[in-house]
Amino acid sequence: MDNASLQIQPDEYGLLTDLYQLTMAACYVGEGLDQRRASFELFVRRLPEGFGYLIAAGLASALDYLDKFCFTPAQLAALKATGIFAGAPADFWQLLESGKFSGDVWAVPEGTAIFANEPILRVEAPLWQAQIVETYLLNAINYQTLIATRAARLRDVAGPEAKLLEFGTRRAFSPQASLWAARAALAGGLDATSNVLAALKLGRNPVGTMAHALVMAITALEGSEADSFEAFHRYFPGAALLIDTYDTMAAAKMLGQNRPDQLAGIRLDSGDLVTLSQQVRQELPGIPIFASGDLDEREILRLKQAGACIDGYGLGTKLVTGSPVNGVYKLAEIDGIPVMKEASGKLTYPGRKQIFRSEQGDRLGLADEATPAHADGLLMPVMRHGQRVVADDSLGQICARATRSVAQLPATARDVVNPIIPQAEISPALQKLTDCTRRSQLATVN
Amino acid sequence: MDNASLQIQPDEYGLLTDLYQLTMAACYVGEGLDQRRASFELFVRRLPEGFGYLIAAGLASALDYLDKFCFTPAQLAALKATGIFAGAPADFWQLLESGKFSGDVWAVPEGTAIFANEPILRVEAPLWQAQIVETYLLNAINYQTLIATRAARLRDVAGPEAKLLEFGTRRAFSPQASLWAARAALAGGLDATSNVLAALKLGRNPVGTMAHALVMAITALEGSEADSFEAFHRYFPGAALLIDTYDTMAAAKMLGQNRPDQLAGIRLDSGDLVTLSQQVRQELPGIPIFASGDLDEREILRLKQAGACIDGYGLGTKLVTGSPVNGVYKLAEIDGIPVMKEASGKLTYPGRKQIFRSEQGDRLGLADEATPAHADGLLMPVMRHGQRVVADDSLGQICARATRSVAQLPATARDVVNPIIPQAEISPALQKLTDCTRRSQLATVN
Repeated sequence: MDNASLQIQPDEYGLLTDLYQLTMAACYVGEGLDQRRASFELFVRRLPEGFGYLIAAGLASALDYLDKFCFTPAQLAALKATGIFAGAPADFWQLLESGKFSGDVWAVPEGTAIFANEPILRVEAPLWQAQIVETYLLNAINYQTLIATRAARLRDVAGPEAKLLEFGTRRAFSPQASLWAARAALAGGLDATSNVLAALKLGRNPVGTMAHALVMAITALEGSEADSFEAFHRYFPGAALLIDTYDTMAAAKMLGQNRPDQLAGIRLDSGDLVTLSQQVRQELPGIPIFASGDLDEREILRLKQAGACIDGYGLGTKLVTGSPVNGVYKLAEIDGIPVMKEASGKLTYPGRKQIFRSEQGDRLGLADEATPAHADGLLMPVMRHGQRVVADDSLGQICARATRSVAQLPATARDVVNPIIPQAEISPALQKLTDCTRRSQLATVN
Repeated sequence: MDNASLQIQPDEYGLLTDLYQLTMAACYVGEGLDQRRASFELFVRRLPEGFGYLIAAGLASALDYLDKFCFTPAQLAALKATGIFAGAPADFWQLLESGKFSGDVWAVPEGTAIFANEPILRVEAPLWQAQIVETYLLNAINYQTLIATRAARLRDVAGPEAKLLEFGTRRAFSPQASLWAARAALAGGLDATSNVLAALKLGRNPVGTMAHALVMAITALEGSEADSFEAFHRYFPGAALLIDTYDTMAAAKMLGQNRPDQLAGIRLDSGDLVTLSQQVRQELPGIPIFASGDLDEREILRLKQAGACIDGYGLGTKLVTGSPVNGVYKLAEIDGIPVMKEASGKLTYPGRKQIFRSEQGDRLGLADEATPAHADGLLMPVMRHGQRVVADDSLGQICARATRSVAQLPATARDVVNPIIPQAEISPALQKLTDCTRRSQLATVN
């Protein structure tokens, strides 16, 4: 296998898992438990610092993975050759070789706001399958949910008129992360991405302005910054120009005196954005001003409150990197028996659950409870017996849902500095089940 | 193209760039500047908060990308269909279609410690090529350098005897990020990864213990936590056991009374790790204790100072996510003319540079300067005329280099809480060039 760039081939995603998922699966086979029906739920115990909600994303990749889940004979041979599975039952290899994902999946649609302890997704499948898929499902949903949430917060703070552009590819944590970030950013409310491959895959046009290198190269070779602007406009008439390579206000004044036709905007990437944007607006009235450089929703809020004249923002580093969404994937029921984890500070709710959302807020209940009046159950069936039962939502649908979701939140949850996170009420049935399950397990252990 | 999981095909990496790289390249073609020789250098202006050094990594992926750099006719058709390039010169398309990377690359070997403003890599190539490759090169080196650096810090704090295991796949920012993180973590000093695909691609055995789900499932189906441990050991004799699902000390006492043969270890994933590890050591003397759960180098330092009895650590979230290394890629010379950026707070040093390292510290000078006595130039030629001139280092070589690099650092740079970052001295020749270049450009602009 290629070991330099660690590119992933389309048939390699089965092995994209933690070793223990496979050793546990082998144990389940040996114990005759591999076909027992298991329900695992994916949720977040605590929201990231300063977040008042999450926007669910990543379901499309998760389902695509489950669709394609398999192991090739060559992969299984490589796995055997490690020697780790010397004691595993022979049936284990047969199961993996013939294995397809045959379970049911329930999920919250992408673009939906969710909170702590609310399942984003539930897998109901033979135990061995539900176990192995954990790693990839978490990988897909954790990151895309983080980015969609940040995008929604950015849109909420910047307002509907602002142009919000995803510029994070150079800082994203791998090429694939840059593609996932681009999709999730558009899903959460950004307008466009500079990532050419991502844009083309998503059926969108990529966007961008120009970089300092062009200004520096043409200034050095042809004589002046003005030459670099004119050169760029010969091929991209009116394209937005980057004016802070040497002296921002000198460049703005020069453009004010020799204003190009249809100038689509200028970009500022350094300095005091409040003062500079106000001064540039004076020199170049009516020309959109774009800002970039380590911006996030809090900084945009600050810029707006300070009276900056900024019409669009390039979002990179602080959109696509940083602290993660720490989703977990926990066994909730096995063979009809509700189970829960009781580790210190990491208690989970047992049983197959549903989120009932109404104007009064969320209630976390059991999947089999009757839906309360005027409430909707957020988790929907998306896969049955390993087959998709709904088509993927389009990016436009997801983005519209995210916008609606955010608009319906209390203002205190939308605060990007000190939000108050809405708490789901626990239904009496779920509370009762939690109490019973906990006691019975303590009795077993003691 | 596939738009759900956004998998990247091996021939798609040419498009993995920001739009503006392509529009600038089109402008260079139109202006007849595309073949001018450009030197871009990749470096970090400021180290991440709390870091006293960086361990360079990602070169192997960067060179693999440059080796394969190309555009397919279908990709160029998709690009044309966006309409963005309607004004681009026809030669631009011919250039991309026939384009291969034909430049020279100088780089610091992976595993080398480097500091602010020191080039990790320099590309010397026709301007259009050197421009387009910026995005991918930054993506590859920024992330892998971050992870290798964190791994080196973890090893430095935990000591040579500790087992350090990379468990971050579920939290990594995309599947490919998990593979890159695994490789860079091993390069920086970790022992092994739980990521099965990464391990097999790297020729290593994956590692792991067990998860709470197995304990919960078998406890529910077969009766007790002890049953789950026995079941797992039937297929993986002696495998490390996870003992905090219900009551950590109850599980430890139970294992102390019915001690399995060759128990390879136990894992703690919650609670007060200092107290629990001490109590578990009492119950299970001689059994290695592994800890996991949001650990990083500072927490490991705290645990050690507090007297925790921990022999190995599982590192996930805080190893593979978080604040990035913010490398930049800046034009240093065009057609033999040194250039620099002078934007507020973002000044760069002009000219093609070399890092001269000696026991007295680093000197940043010009590539053409004589190497000072008792110093070595860290940047080496790795590609000439688009051809590799050295083979990739093995992971073992890189890791050994990282260990040596860290050992040679001042203790103040190795401090993981309040490090002092070594500063390279600027050579008189580079200082003189900086002063001249700056003045001449200001004269041009004003």
